[in-house]
Amino acid sequence: MSVVVQNIPRADSAVIDTLGRAGVATVHEAQGRTGCLASYMRPIWRGARIAGSAVTISAPPGDNWMLHVAIEQLQPGDILVLSPTSPCDNGYFGDLLATSALARGCRGLIIDAGVRDVADLQDMGFPVWSKAISAQGTVKETLGSVNVPIVCAGQIIQAGDVIVADDDGVVVVPHAQAAEVAAKATTRLDAEEAKRKRLAAGELGLDIYDMRARLAEKGLKYI
Amino acid sequence: MSVVVQNIPRADSAVIDTLGRAGVATVHEAQGRTGCLASYMRPIWRGARIAGSAVTISAPPGDNWMLHVAIEQLQPGDILVLSPTSPCDNGYFGDLLATSALARGCRGLIIDAGVRDVADLQDMGFPVWSKAISAQGTVKETLGSVNVPIVCAGQIIQAGDVIVADDDGVVVVPHAQAAEVAAKATTRLDAEEAKRKRLAAGELGLDIYDMRARLAEKGLKYI
Amino acid sequence: MSVVVQNIPRADSAVIDTLGRAGVATVHEAQGRTGCLASYMRPIWRGARIAGSAVTISAPPGDNWMLHVAIEQLQPGDILVLSPTSPCDNGYFGDLLATSALARGCRGLIIDAGVRDVADLQDMGFPVWSKAISAQGTVKETLGSVNVPIVCAGQIIQAGDVIVADDDGVVVVPHAQAAEVAAKATTRLDAEEAKRKRLAAGELGLDIYDMRARLAEKGLKYI
Amino acid sequence: MSVVVQNIPRADSAVIDTLGRAGVATVHEAQGRTGCLASYMRPIWRGARIAGSAVTISAPPGDNWMLHVAIEQLQPGDILVLSPTSPCDNGYFGDLLATSALARGCRGLIIDAGVRDVADLQDMGFPVWSKAISAQGTVKETLGSVNVPIVCAGQIIQAGDVIVADDDGVVVVPHAQAAEVAAKATTRLDAEEAKRKRLAAGELGLDIYDMRARLAEKGLKYI
Amino acid sequence: MSVVVQNIPRADSAVIDTLGRAGVATVHEAQGRTGCLASYMRPIWRGARIAGSAVTISAPPGDNWMLHVAIEQLQPGDILVLSPTSPCDNGYFGDLLATSALARGCRGLIIDAGVRDVADLQDMGFPVWSKAISAQGTVKETLGSVNVPIVCAGQIIQAGDVIVADDDGVVVVPHAQAAEVAAKATTRLDAEEAKRKRLAAGELGLDIYDMRARLAEKGLKYI
Amino acid sequence: MSVVVQNIPRADSAVIDTLGRAGVATVHEAQGRTGCLASYMRPIWRGARIAGSAVTISAPPGDNWMLHVAIEQLQPGDILVLSPTSPCDNGYFGDLLATSALARGCRGLIIDAGVRDVADLQDMGFPVWSKAISAQGTVKETLGSVNVPIVCAGQIIQAGDVIVADDDGVVVVPHAQAAEVAAKATTRLDAEEAKRKRLAAGELGLDIYDMRARLAEKGLKYI
Repeated sequence: MSVVVQNIPRADSAVIDTLGRAGVATVHEAQGRTGCLASYMRPIWRGARIAGSAVTISAPPGDNWMLHVAIEQLQPGDILVLSPTSPCDNGYFGDLLATSALARGCRGLIIDAGVRDVADLQDMGFPVWSKAISAQGTVKETLGSVNVPIVCAGQIIQAGDVIVADDDGVVVVPHAQAAEVAAKATTRLDAEEAKRKRLAAGELGLDIYDMRARLAEKGLKYI
Repeated sequence: MSVVVQNIPRADSAVIDTLGRAGVATVHEAQGRTGCLASYMRPIWRGARIAGSAVTISAPPGDNWMLHVAIEQLQPGDILVLSPTSPCDNGYFGDLLATSALARGCRGLIIDAGVRDVADLQDMGFPVWSKAISAQGTVKETLGSVNVPIVCAGQIIQAGDVIVADDDGVVVVPHAQAAEVAAKATTRLDAEEAKRKRLAAGELGLDIYDMRARLAEKGLKYI
Repeated sequence: MSVVVQNIPRADSAVIDTLGRAGVATVHEAQGRTGCLASYMRPIWRGARIAGSAVTISAPPGDNWMLHVAIEQLQPGDILVLSPTSPCDNGYFGDLLATSALARGCRGLIIDAGVRDVADLQDMGFPVWSKAISAQGTVKETLGSVNVPIVCAGQIIQAGDVIVADDDGVVVVPHAQAAEVAAKATTRLDAEEAKRKRLAAGELGLDIYDMRARLAEKGLKYI
Repeated sequence: MSVVVQNIPRADSAVIDTLGRAGVATVHEAQGRTGCLASYMRPIWRGARIAGSAVTISAPPGDNWMLHVAIEQLQPGDILVLSPTSPCDNGYFGDLLATSALARGCRGLIIDAGVRDVADLQDMGFPVWSKAISAQGTVKETLGSVNVPIVCAGQIIQAGDVIVADDDGVVVVPHAQAAEVAAKATTRLDAEEAKRKRLAAGELGLDIYDMRARLAEKGLKYI
Repeated sequence: MSVVVQNIPRADSAVIDTLGRAGVATVHEAQGRTGCLASYMRPIWRGARIAGSAVTISAPPGDNWMLHVAIEQLQPGDILVLSPTSPCDNGYFGDLLATSALARGCRGLIIDAGVRDVADLQDMGFPVWSKAISAQGTVKETLGSVNVPIVCAGQIIQAGDVIVADDDGVVVVPHAQAAEVAAKATTRLDAEEAKRKRLAAGELGLDIYDMRARLAEKGLKYI
Repeated sequence: MSVVVQNIPRADSAVIDTLGRAGVATVHEAQGRTGCLASYMRPIWRGARIAGSAVTISAPPGDNWMLHVAIEQLQPGDILVLSPTSPCDNGYFGDLLATSALARGCRGLIIDAGVRDVADLQDMGFPVWSKAISAQGTVKETLGSVNVPIVCAGQIIQAGDVIVADDDGVVVVPHAQAAEVAAKATTRLDAEEAKRKRLAAGELGLDIYDMRARLAEKGLKYI
């Protein structure tokens, strides 16, 4: 059955912004080293860092019809997240859809497939993390669903989960844990800042993290 | 048998330039969603957009001898297109060959294998779309052919076909269809411009393309 | 057995610098077309060119403990080279480890696995060649070894071997051959400069390298 | 947090057996073309067809400790389903673990990683669908979880979901839908049998499925 | 434009049978080391060797409608050859389509995508060479073409070309060259038989092929 | 420089046979979980288990000349181990070379590239572990070396090292450690036999290996 779920939960915007500032690696650590999408999901241009609420799309291979349906469901601050029902590298999304998504306040696209018009997307400042860049077009023949749970690049994503993406890739934070993870991420950033100074001054991780005894106990030999 | 075909047809230069301005995605759509090379063919640097006539090369794996032969066949506005006879990621082409190709007016290289000296190639403004970047060198021991039909990254390419390449990848337009495709691409660009304005103003694709009734008929449910 | 070898040979710094100036493609040719790491080893940012002495790390999949151990072994001018004992794309290394490595004069990292904080690493000017970019973190539970011979991306690397890396990828020069290869690379660069001028002036490789007779003898036909 | 969920729902055994008899392709169609794990999940030997209740395992890369924990949770008719938290092809499972699993009535293993001792596993009649076959061993250092929701080869799997696996691959049926899907699969098998006879007698799918008019309407030309 | 070409040339059946007896490796050598499809095209069961005339299919990703159209075009001795217009691993073909194809005298399927019901196909003795085995089903929504030139797994295939397939993979022989290649293959088989006896008796290829002088001349050193 | 090293060390035949009986997984564990070649190295037919001394070959991509040279260096009980200098899936080896190798007592081939005539090789009982099966032929134009150290599928292999291969893949044991590893492997097999009986009787690994306390200490929760 093909459905569009119209009312989805969204995390508090301050929480989302905090997660965005923390970035993918820190958020991923703050929630217990979970939530990273597969490493083949790469930004089509470098330098963007976004966070927002997932509007999810399950689409057939080679068919981008549901993107048009999903765009109507966007609210400012949302991020489109598309997963095909079987592997596909077609270019589902280009500058026209990006124009439409931007007009509704969309912050970016996460797609386990391909995109095109990437030079235009970069000029527009519209960020995308994708598996492929491909000009190969798609059809509009077969339905999919919007705002249902999907698996995207190895992670379960529910509509309204928080997506954070930067040059390191993409991480998903379940909606219910967003506030707690944001708090932990902030704490973590503060701790990292202190460590960074000590390391820059020449102290060793071996000493800062007190590793020498445990290494010896496990049997490490210096020769 | 190893051959060099010396007289090849070339499309009209105005047609070629029109296709180049239209870009890969538009040209691919204008010829019925055909002709895209595989998505692993990526530019070694971003921002180039070229169009030209294919000088094709069929070369053995790890052997770049035929590139020297092909360069003599280049006319200003041509594009070298090389496919190895079995998969290979060696660096067939570097700054010396690029210097020679540029001296003959070559607009770029499409290669289903590797290239090297990519920093120099970028400094020279010589664009390449390749499967790999690799410093691994090649030998000059075994013949291949020049200007015979080849399969490159999944597409049939005949000498004199028009190649268009940009940040979205590479598309081939058969020589005989170049003028017709160029005309359709121009029409398409005009139509896209109108749609872009409506989408930027907040209209939805669902309405512009009149999709709502067909979606309902196929069974899409809003919940 | 897990060991840390503390005294390793290092090539003469003038030799290392010469190899660095020559770059990956030239060095690889100068040592008989050997030593290139696999072409999937890509720079996380473009434009760096480094050379230095390898401090090698053999690490378990998903465990970056040995990086902390290796950093203590670094001397100014060294390059960290890590290979996991089975394929892994986790982010073993980020901005904190880079801060520590930089404080000890490290010139970069070669890693047949993943790294993270790549925007920070670029801001710091710390170059990395890796198989993947991934925010996925690692644990510190299982020992590996430092400065033992490793296979990294298809090449044998001994501690103290010279690593050269640029936009074309990575090449390793065995310590014992470094001076000889540096001399040959210098000769090669001079010869290339002369050829470049002739090619730029429109001479053909077919003539400069005297290939026409050998092509005919092998059976190449012009039609 | 690492947890072991001890009480999981299981589908009715008659339903499970019906799904097993129907096989992967039919079950997948019966639930609306959903639920197939990625096609790289291949049987280590051909000819097995199993169905059972999933006991799920989330395990770190290169660490098989949780398999020992999971085996205690097995009931007769269960199937172990393991997904690593990042890509890994190590051999997590071999003949000793299979001996233990068989002693508790386990019907097989689905693993998005590697297994070993495959000749022994075949001799024992223990079926496995895996991403890889690899002798590379693992450690027992880091916790994971048992009977939590996992993503395995692109599908969400909850403990107690029904797994069906045969030479075509693996499909998951959510626990709540198992009875309904089993009923639809039975209907489907009956319908297929009738069609098979007509096709064997030389009737065409074009006629049986009444496709000619729709093909013409879409524009298919016979030349 | 979607078309079905109804009249295609076919090679003489004696020629086809000779090519089939020679097998893939010999045929490929006999036509100058050309025509092999990519090595990822593997038989779904081992032991079949077929030869026949290609009925070609160009199909959209995830859409198997054209297979029904193509089956009507089959004549006894033909082989179906399908290539999707973009990469796809879906199961386009199963036991019902095989039943229909067999009823029309089809000898097998070559498909640069997936198939399913592989246990049934093996029981029926219907051979398939494919990129994938996958239960994932397809739709019937979008047209393709039948008996147009296609690129399948890296080779150009025209309707009526001779396909030879065995455990080594798949090779295509252009229709116009079939008789000549069959003659050369026969000659080659005879020559191989003589060499096989000498090699089995302990003579070395170095001597039979008179390689020692040429190896020395190229610079091979024995140490 | 291309060389053939004629005198290589070989391990004691009793040691080699012991390693062969132990099999790949046990040998790999007995030497500290090292030495496994990459998991893409698969047997071309199932059921063989061999052990022998490595005769190593470094060969150019697409050039099998050195195999003829290497066969002369074979002694009864040896195993050919070939690695191309850059990735290649060509069929370097077929039934004629196998006939010649068998005539000299060769036990099999390990090749990080392709082989062909696999049906014949299976009929002859000649085992091969390879990266690919491909009919694509090779040339004899460029030298390589025999019995030099190579990297094959991620492992360093010296001439005379012991190779063990079975359905789990391939492992290399350095010549100097062969006797010690054989002894450890024997001990390990005995220990496994005892464990196998206890596990078959229903005892749990959790108890046999005394894991419960350590799991609790690490924080595992049962819910």
